[in-house]
Amino acid sequence: MHGLIAKLTTVAGARDEMIAVLRASASNMPGCLNYIVAEDAGNENVLWVTEVWETEASHAASLALPAVKAAIVSARSLVAQFERLAVTIPVGDLGAMTAKAPTSQRSAEPRAPTA
Amino acid sequence: MHGLIAKLTTVAGARDEMIAVLRASASNMPGCLNYIVAEDAGNENVLWVTEVWETEASHAASLALPAVKAAIVSARSLVAQFERLAVTIPVGDLGAMTAKAPTSQRSAEPRAPTA
Repeated sequence: MHGLIAKLTTVAGARDEMIAVLRASASNMPGCLNYIVAEDAGNENVLWVTEVWETEASHAASLALPAVKAAIVSARSLVAQFERLAVTIPVGDLGAMTAKAPTSQRSAEPRAPTA
Repeated sequence: MHGLIAKLTTVAGARDEMIAVLRASASNMPGCLNYIVAEDAGNENVLWVTEVWETEASHAASLALPAVKAAIVSARSLVAQFERLAVTIPVGDLGAMTAKAPTSQRSAEPRAPTA
């Protein structure tokens, strides 16, 4: 799996509009297992986007989707600062492993506990 | 919804053991919609934990679960630094809204697009 954690600071008052842009673009992305958009509870201009993809290639391919390309254009006037805080290797949705997650969201090769 | 984004830096070489601790504790947490644990791709001692809960109260209640309390004790010797980067209000799993997410993972009140 391939993950990304990003912090977006919008221009003043543009957060709701940026969420709408993401809603319009972030569905139907092949290989996207999880795409959580969240408002910062303490800063009204900050959004957090946390993504889980099947592979790095599936994320890269998403950037060529028409809806995603359109969103990137829209974001130029809405986003004041984009910070990619981390590129990650998700080990799974642990909270949902027992019952809630579809099989595709589980880690393909769970590690044996070392403790 | 209530969200958390945290960065854990383990003591050298303890990341796999910390993942095992989280695996043992983070399942079966009532009100937990999403609990992604991810290795930082660039730092072998860093883990990212991103959480989505139904409410702030459901997260608070989880801290009293025996498995979670045990994990907190175990973490004391494994984690060198814990940084809570954000408390958030998730607006939904946008990537999964179309087909993959069960109803309970969707935003209860989707906002109307403003753009």
